[in-house]
Amino acid sequence: MSVATAKVQVKDMVVVMKELATEAQADAVVTQLVEMGFDVHRAMGGNRIVIGAVGGGQGDPALIELWDGVHEVLRISEPYKLASRSFQRENTVITIGDVRIGGDEVIVMAGPCSAETVEQVETTAAAVKRAGAKVFRGGAFKPRSSPYSFQGLGVAGLQMLREAADRHDLKLITEVMEVAQIPVVERYAHILQVGARNMQNYSLLRELGKVRTPVLLKRGLSATIEEWLMSAEYILAGGNMNVMLCERGIRTFESYTRNTLDISAIPVVQQLSHLPVISDPSHGTGRRDKVVAMARASVAAGADGLLVEVHCDPDHAVSDGAQSLFPQQFDQLMGELRIIAPAIGRGICVEPASRRGWGH
Amino acid sequence: MSVATAKVQVKDMVVVMKELATEAQADAVVTQLVEMGFDVHRAMGGNRIVIGAVGGGQGDPALIELWDGVHEVLRISEPYKLASRSFQRENTVITIGDVRIGGDEVIVMAGPCSAETVEQVETTAAAVKRAGAKVFRGGAFKPRSSPYSFQGLGVAGLQMLREAADRHDLKLITEVMEVAQIPVVERYAHILQVGARNMQNYSLLRELGKVRTPVLLKRGLSATIEEWLMSAEYILAGGNMNVMLCERGIRTFESYTRNTLDISAIPVVQQLSHLPVISDPSHGTGRRDKVVAMARASVAAGADGLLVEVHCDPDHAVSDGAQSLFPQQFDQLMGELRIIAPAIGRGICVEPASRRGWGH
Amino acid sequence: MSVATAKVQVKDMVVVMKELATEAQADAVVTQLVEMGFDVHRAMGGNRIVIGAVGGGQGDPALIELWDGVHEVLRISEPYKLASRSFQRENTVITIGDVRIGGDEVIVMAGPCSAETVEQVETTAAAVKRAGAKVFRGGAFKPRSSPYSFQGLGVAGLQMLREAADRHDLKLITEVMEVAQIPVVERYAHILQVGARNMQNYSLLRELGKVRTPVLLKRGLSATIEEWLMSAEYILAGGNMNVMLCERGIRTFESYTRNTLDISAIPVVQQLSHLPVISDPSHGTGRRDKVVAMARASVAAGADGLLVEVHCDPDHAVSDGAQSLFPQQFDQLMGELRIIAPAIGRGICVEPASRRGWGH
Amino acid sequence: MSVATAKVQVKDMVVVMKELATEAQADAVVTQLVEMGFDVHRAMGGNRIVIGAVGGGQGDPALIELWDGVHEVLRISEPYKLASRSFQRENTVITIGDVRIGGDEVIVMAGPCSAETVEQVETTAAAVKRAGAKVFRGGAFKPRSSPYSFQGLGVAGLQMLREAADRHDLKLITEVMEVAQIPVVERYAHILQVGARNMQNYSLLRELGKVRTPVLLKRGLSATIEEWLMSAEYILAGGNMNVMLCERGIRTFESYTRNTLDISAIPVVQQLSHLPVISDPSHGTGRRDKVVAMARASVAAGADGLLVEVHCDPDHAVSDGAQSLFPQQFDQLMGELRIIAPAIGRGICVEPASRRGWGH
Repeated sequence: MSVATAKVQVKDMVVVMKELATEAQADAVVTQLVEMGFDVHRAMGGNRIVIGAVGGGQGDPALIELWDGVHEVLRISEPYKLASRSFQRENTVITIGDVRIGGDEVIVMAGPCSAETVEQVETTAAAVKRAGAKVFRGGAFKPRSSPYSFQGLGVAGLQMLREAADRHDLKLITEVMEVAQIPVVERYAHILQVGARNMQNYSLLRELGKVRTPVLLKRGLSATIEEWLMSAEYILAGGNMNVMLCERGIRTFESYTRNTLDISAIPVVQQLSHLPVISDPSHGTGRRDKVVAMARASVAAGADGLLVEVHCDPDHAVSDGAQSLFPQQFDQLMGELRIIAPAIGRGICVEPASRRGWGH
Repeated sequence: MSVATAKVQVKDMVVVMKELATEAQADAVVTQLVEMGFDVHRAMGGNRIVIGAVGGGQGDPALIELWDGVHEVLRISEPYKLASRSFQRENTVITIGDVRIGGDEVIVMAGPCSAETVEQVETTAAAVKRAGAKVFRGGAFKPRSSPYSFQGLGVAGLQMLREAADRHDLKLITEVMEVAQIPVVERYAHILQVGARNMQNYSLLRELGKVRTPVLLKRGLSATIEEWLMSAEYILAGGNMNVMLCERGIRTFESYTRNTLDISAIPVVQQLSHLPVISDPSHGTGRRDKVVAMARASVAAGADGLLVEVHCDPDHAVSDGAQSLFPQQFDQLMGELRIIAPAIGRGICVEPASRRGWGH
Repeated sequence: MSVATAKVQVKDMVVVMKELATEAQADAVVTQLVEMGFDVHRAMGGNRIVIGAVGGGQGDPALIELWDGVHEVLRISEPYKLASRSFQRENTVITIGDVRIGGDEVIVMAGPCSAETVEQVETTAAAVKRAGAKVFRGGAFKPRSSPYSFQGLGVAGLQMLREAADRHDLKLITEVMEVAQIPVVERYAHILQVGARNMQNYSLLRELGKVRTPVLLKRGLSATIEEWLMSAEYILAGGNMNVMLCERGIRTFESYTRNTLDISAIPVVQQLSHLPVISDPSHGTGRRDKVVAMARASVAAGADGLLVEVHCDPDHAVSDGAQSLFPQQFDQLMGELRIIAPAIGRGICVEPASRRGWGH
Repeated sequence: MSVATAKVQVKDMVVVMKELATEAQADAVVTQLVEMGFDVHRAMGGNRIVIGAVGGGQGDPALIELWDGVHEVLRISEPYKLASRSFQRENTVITIGDVRIGGDEVIVMAGPCSAETVEQVETTAAAVKRAGAKVFRGGAFKPRSSPYSFQGLGVAGLQMLREAADRHDLKLITEVMEVAQIPVVERYAHILQVGARNMQNYSLLRELGKVRTPVLLKRGLSATIEEWLMSAEYILAGGNMNVMLCERGIRTFESYTRNTLDISAIPVVQQLSHLPVISDPSHGTGRRDKVVAMARASVAAGADGLLVEVHCDPDHAVSDGAQSLFPQQFDQLMGELRIIAPAIGRGICVEPASRRGWGH
């Protein structure tokens, strides 16, 4: 079996014995499983004894796999519950004012990587609103791989971002990096973003389960879909049911793009879970000239929304300039998405009246 | 440096010395590079000596990286030439009768994994033609990971496939697995397919450089884009300029899908190379219920064509049934693609007149 | 270039122009680089213009790569400084009482995954001491992928662990998961462990830079070696120079083992950095029957230490039982390591006198 | 389930129904499985229906996974037979004259990447013999990623290699790249090497099943252990039982080393299969300065042999110079291995009498 996810206690499993296992070994396995509270079914699978263990028991498959005569242990149930389609059949729709995420409309969230100045924030907010975005994105607390890099404007940045969002009737999404930041970020943001590097920061996830502000949970760079859903489960288990998932690229051997945006995760997650799935083509590729193609592909694959970096002057952005779109590029992208979305029965923000005169 | 692709002799490079390297070590490096035929430029980069080596020389960067005092060697030039946009600025368009691959129209190639019976081949060919495919796909020589699996019908299969293709005015693409099969496959097929597992079968590539039949070269499961273009270079260097590339999924840690279809490879390759890029969502996902979403995403990302498995009765297919579309699913997909293609200025086969009455 | 690590501001770089770039484009690049504070050298590399940018400037290579006519940007300097061998030529040796990590002796840290009971902790501590371990490991705050799993005993666990360590003259290493836990964990532990999932929890790293207790920094599941060293840089930059690195397995496509222990990272890190490197074969494999072989391989490859899970009764461990060694297995492993270590000029704890009579 | 290897027809499996599946769906699954020849057992697993299918049937799990109401299909049996420990409990020992591969002695195979000149071959053969190698390695037909690189000396190279091997009482291993080369390579070599890029060249594997010369099968760059054993199965199924496996590094996201040598594959394969496992640290790292550490680690992990590139003058090697050891380095490595091997109850070639005087 894949032991990648085996650390969870599992309720239902199939224990496959080695072909060369003895009857005595099989008997010992059965006895132990019964002691652990399982109902046990025993059968012959070709040349092997196969033991089904279901019912009220609980055990660690990785450990049972080491018992004498055991070949492998197959899990039957998923380790997540509240995040699964079995738990809730209908799509979760997260409503923030007049914005509905997970419904018929593809919701586009756009804005700069970081808040830098009042002018930069204002100009960019105006541009993304004009093009059709419904949510404004921007960072005030920045996770940076170098201790020598710009770390964000903090609360001052939050204020700038929220004021610009309000001026343009946009909702605000921004990142929260640690437990201590939750209260202040919650005061300003409509959606709390958990970055890829924090996907398994369980202390943070647990606290986010206690608030009611919607959370966007990015997939870790090397997280399996199951692990991603397990991290969502942490938040859901705390009582916060407003969780949306965000695919932002996984790490592979290919080095031409910064990451490999796993577009197939979109339909896969939609089958396994009822939570909305957002795609982030900016971090998924790391290069402005690939963002547009991947944004189109994400919507064509069925994404419930996009998270796109747009900057009024990418060449002078303090961070992520290389993957930020120019406002005109974003505007053109929105036009293309308005053609694509109907192919899968989705809508996207219609061209607002205020948009007339763009570029004049 | 990444030494992943370092085995190639390189013409232009930058040799970065260690911060602690001595003048004598730098002198020795310069002397050796000059002896190897390079023009050498020397400069200080911060605390390091940096040596540019260009001009007529040739050397193995991985080897030079081991010289005393050398920190790393950076390649300047790509190892491929004929496949690059620097060599040819305009897109290559491959013309087979009235089918033009790499032009304005997105070309769809569809059909069963394997030829099984005359009826199965005929029924599937009729269905894919009716839905708008221009090329018929189907296997007669099958690479199978188990020696105990069905290995294909061979020449009898080729005959079936070609007859059905001709009856429905479709071109035929089929796989060639080894050098000895080239003459017979060439007799029947309009396009020779090289499978992912043979992407670095250099004996085969070299022979395909000697024919003039177009070749579709699939990306290996763990091939970088540079290696893929190097394999195309083998065929081009032999004189066969009719090469198209096919993304079919790379191997990652994610196990829910069989492979991870790297859709970002489509715009990347189109920037680096003039060769057409085809996407294979069937092998890229391995699951029928994900194929349609990934086919749409591929076209939205700009693919020049699709390679899709369709079977008249997937549940009883001898191979790859799980990833084969039902004819009705394929027909619906084509309808969706007709909406998406114009978003990027592409067309796709218009609904043929004969299609009226589908399902009656 | 690989943009995987491109988000850092870079001081020295080589800008390679496209073959088809114009003189005007090259001139524009030169002008901009000069404005950014660089000293600029210009040369012809084969058919390309190559521009060296060194000196006092600073820029984002990913952004420059998008300038008109630019083909790629090659970084010359590493983004980390204090962690590099260029900064400090001699090995860092971390001294905790009579234990010296990074010196001639291979230091073995062993103990249970989690503290469970006073007896379990005591029995295991006695066993690992007898076999030759110098440091006791054990968890009190546990990061668990499921919200429904055992989360550790907290401070009560810390007390148990420290008392057992003291009784047996062992130092204690234990995990700290969040900023708020640092003071309490520091009170009990000699070494603070940062788990793989927290390798890029920058808030935590920054705080650990302010304390003086040694830190063991695990490599993230999909972290490159450069990113790992950048995370160490966060702690070093804060002033805490007592950092050791711990390889614990990376995620690959192979699913038979939980992770793939990247043993080659040991010699690679020892070349790039002066910090000690520890190997964790328990998490690296996830299966007890593979731990011993990988522990031997780690020492043969030159690891400065090992971190091994040992449990007095693995079959009933509340966590990680499948990868915990029985005390007798650990004892035998230590015997094998005493043979291997001298092959590379290292020693390992000599058999203590108290060990006589083991098993009697 | 992981569908990565699902294309094989499978004899024994467990079909797990969705929690929301209906009785009618379960009945339909049972009926179909019975029609396919399976003995069917039905049980409740928690909230799910679980259906065991064993006995005489055969089916494609990937296809069954798409049936209505099916959640996933778990395979019970491996797809390989002859390569498994269930088929043969004792280790396979391959005997070539007085060399026994898979027995108590660790067999070292060493020599240059390519045969270049009579002198180079002779000097290197003398050196590796003196240090304790039992098998001489060297290439005459070279798979190169660039069509512009040196492609090997062909038959002339084979002659040089065999003559040098015979002069020094060494066995010869060399690569065979295609079916047409088998007869000539078999005339000169004692072991036929299949390169990583050909691991799934089924035409080649099938032909190698028909000869009786031992085959060393390298693991593909992104092959799972199961796929590797399936490729061995191709050769075994043809009747050639003299197969040894060779780990040579897998592709990961880490770019500092050319590949990541998966040392954990050594104990894993030894548990799953009876075939000998050889490690190739030269290709596994791509850098001479890492080869020695990884060679030691491989032996410490239990490898049955090593395949090491050694060149009398690596700086002027026509290929792979960067990963070739100098003769003195190889000699020192052999000394270290003589210390390590006894730690795991293995021997290694004792210092031959003729070695006295080395370096004088």
